[in-house]
Amino acid sequence: MSDALATDLYEVNMALAYLDTGMTGTATFSLFVRHLPPDRGFLVAAGLESALDHLASFRVDDEDVAAFADALGRPPSELEPLRGLRFSGDAWAVPEGRILFPDTPLLEVTAPMPEAQLVETHLLNQLSHQSAQASKAARCILVAGGRQVVDFSLRRCQGLEAGLHAARAGAVVGFAATSNVAAAARYGIPATGTMAHSFVEAFDEETEAFRAFAGSTSGPVTLLVDTYDTARGVDHAVEVLRGLPDVRRIGVRLDSGDLAELAHAARRVLDREGLPQARIVASGGLDEYAIEAFVAAGVPIDVFAVGTKVGTSADTPYLDAAYKLVEYDGRPVMKLSTEKVSEPGAKQVFRQAGLDDVLGTRDEPAPAGSEPLLLRVIAGGRRVTPRPSEAEAVAAARKRFRSDLEQLDPSRRRLRGLPDRRIPRSATLARRTEQVRAELRGRA
Amino acid sequence: MSDALATDLYEVNMALAYLDTGMTGTATFSLFVRHLPPDRGFLVAAGLESALDHLASFRVDDEDVAAFADALGRPPSELEPLRGLRFSGDAWAVPEGRILFPDTPLLEVTAPMPEAQLVETHLLNQLSHQSAQASKAARCILVAGGRQVVDFSLRRCQGLEAGLHAARAGAVVGFAATSNVAAAARYGIPATGTMAHSFVEAFDEETEAFRAFAGSTSGPVTLLVDTYDTARGVDHAVEVLRGLPDVRRIGVRLDSGDLAELAHAARRVLDREGLPQARIVASGGLDEYAIEAFVAAGVPIDVFAVGTKVGTSADTPYLDAAYKLVEYDGRPVMKLSTEKVSEPGAKQVFRQAGLDDVLGTRDEPAPAGSEPLLLRVIAGGRRVTPRPSEAEAVAAARKRFRSDLEQLDPSRRRLRGLPDRRIPRSATLARRTEQVRAELRGRA
Repeated sequence: MSDALATDLYEVNMALAYLDTGMTGTATFSLFVRHLPPDRGFLVAAGLESALDHLASFRVDDEDVAAFADALGRPPSELEPLRGLRFSGDAWAVPEGRILFPDTPLLEVTAPMPEAQLVETHLLNQLSHQSAQASKAARCILVAGGRQVVDFSLRRCQGLEAGLHAARAGAVVGFAATSNVAAAARYGIPATGTMAHSFVEAFDEETEAFRAFAGSTSGPVTLLVDTYDTARGVDHAVEVLRGLPDVRRIGVRLDSGDLAELAHAARRVLDREGLPQARIVASGGLDEYAIEAFVAAGVPIDVFAVGTKVGTSADTPYLDAAYKLVEYDGRPVMKLSTEKVSEPGAKQVFRQAGLDDVLGTRDEPAPAGSEPLLLRVIAGGRRVTPRPSEAEAVAAARKRFRSDLEQLDPSRRRLRGLPDRRIPRSATLARRTEQVRAELRGRA
Repeated sequence: MSDALATDLYEVNMALAYLDTGMTGTATFSLFVRHLPPDRGFLVAAGLESALDHLASFRVDDEDVAAFADALGRPPSELEPLRGLRFSGDAWAVPEGRILFPDTPLLEVTAPMPEAQLVETHLLNQLSHQSAQASKAARCILVAGGRQVVDFSLRRCQGLEAGLHAARAGAVVGFAATSNVAAAARYGIPATGTMAHSFVEAFDEETEAFRAFAGSTSGPVTLLVDTYDTARGVDHAVEVLRGLPDVRRIGVRLDSGDLAELAHAARRVLDREGLPQARIVASGGLDEYAIEAFVAAGVPIDVFAVGTKVGTSADTPYLDAAYKLVEYDGRPVMKLSTEKVSEPGAKQVFRQAGLDDVLGTRDEPAPAGSEPLLLRVIAGGRRVTPRPSEAEAVAAARKRFRSDLEQLDPSRRRLRGLPDRRIPRSATLARRTEQVRAELRGRA
């Protein structure tokens, strides 16, 4: 089963209808997010490498034709025009890690209509879910005040693929590590992990469990201290940690109870017992709101391990992404209905210092001192630059995010009470939109 | 990269510590959901086939050992005990499609401790996310009053895997079809699809688009009528649909605006124009609450196409699932902390008519007239029965769900205001829990 099958059936219906009626002219589709989710100040672009892999390798093979025919209840002979179809067009996109605002295209595709149509579902799925995850993870970094955030989400993500992408999204925005070994291996992210309550329970005594754990590793030792009584758990941990040959990389983990109170108590004991280097890791239902509160209150937590709520982007597990036809066969296309107006034609976003963006047209010259955000990434069906390794892609995205974050206005770094932001339109785009609107009204 | 890598690093830490210290006795872990999400009356078991595939094929190969060593920053030689490790234990599980209540184990694993530990993350990921999706989808069926519900979620799911599982979960609870071609092909689900607004916009006239679409297919024709003006869209659709050689499988789709009002208007026109068989398909942000309202108001929608909110289980995108050690080396294990008490030992759930369940112990005899829900599915590392085909597994799960749903108390079919339900404990389990509690308190 090839990648081409991961599509909505209607893409196939439409591609066939286009091929049957000779509607194979060049189309431009724009993939963008209409509105920020509530309380979000910005989006973080992610998922582009997955999207480009799809475009560059897209091919309808024999097995796909058979499956399409089955799904449609039509004889495979009627699907002949699809056989062997590849993506031969161009794509422009915002590199991963960049901070974006609504209406900015994450990606634009310019290709023969049937091809541009067939890749829609895959592109929307990957770009919108990975950007949702990165945008959620970024919020943890906003409020962590430089303390470490790590990803523990795999067990609660919506599938193993979502788990990989959650770890990757975390790495893009600056998480220090992931618990996900597959993601660590694939994306070159540091791996991290402690122990489960079950490990402590499997031994007769907590101290015995701690000794067994510490004794079996030459790596960092972080002991989970809340299985029974947390105060005693810290004492037991100190007893074991103090005796280790290498006490540089040690810590305790708190996973339940009043984390603020327990962290203060644990810190006092660790310091008093001569282990000021021991780190306190906290986990258990954490998200950006919890991190913000702990940091504001000066709670001595060194590492925030986030899981479920961040890995599923639980408060807003999807983005309002659309893949809009904006031009067909040289003719700019727009929808006039009041609910969902979209502006015609291929776009570009021009960014000035301070993430001051203007939405313009693809072909207009960039205003002085501005940087175009959309880069041509696919030309004639091929990547414009060689595919980076997974680790290179993550490292580059991380660098972009860090740089954009430095320029983000403090008002957009808040977790709450953020108004939706509409980026201004260039004079060229505004003029084109008005022209097309007038033409459409004239015809109607 | 094998399946074994999709794990949290701490599983590897713990497995190594168990192997190093000779803690390889038999452990039983119980995977269950502690609490129903708000406003949920029950859960639907799903994900078991994925979980069993993992257990039956689990093997730590050379590449895994290298990746684990990398992740731990330890020399591969220290990980020798893991090399070649397979899952050799037993598993009991609730078959997919069954309706469940909190504290009921979805799955129990009884195996040598390091093996039981290494499979944790994967089992939690698959069983909890697929059950979350099925439990959400089931709510649409509860309120659809026999009208069709279909899955359109792929583009907004958290990855392609999540999209496959959303389609599968829908099929398990009785959705009529999916838009996802890969899921249709893999799971033997009917595929369905209409057209996008972009298709209509690509033509000069709406009627022209409708003609092109209808002319290119011998299959069902459902025309999207809300691109410009919905009332005129319906007129245009009638014009085209009336002229088709086969007018049995026709319809219109509404995707925006006041769906109730538009559906009534469309129904009137279709009936008046001699097309009473034409179906009205509605989409656009639908979930169980919207379906309930439309059905209650008698809105003439024949097919509800659900997407984003159902496919991501948007209001509650995860379940509070745990994988608890309940027995080690013949000794029942329980945690005494007040927050998360878990009962010791292997479990069974005995179900009587009306989904009247009792949580008991694995070894006690089933009360007369009751059915044990957990079946032994893996013995000595192998499936007890041959793996069903994907389509067989879905069909069997669908049958189980339908049968359980018939027995579900009307009070638990509501969408709102459902209290959490605690299933009663058998005398044997209650006694065992008290004994273990007393022993632990004595030791403490």
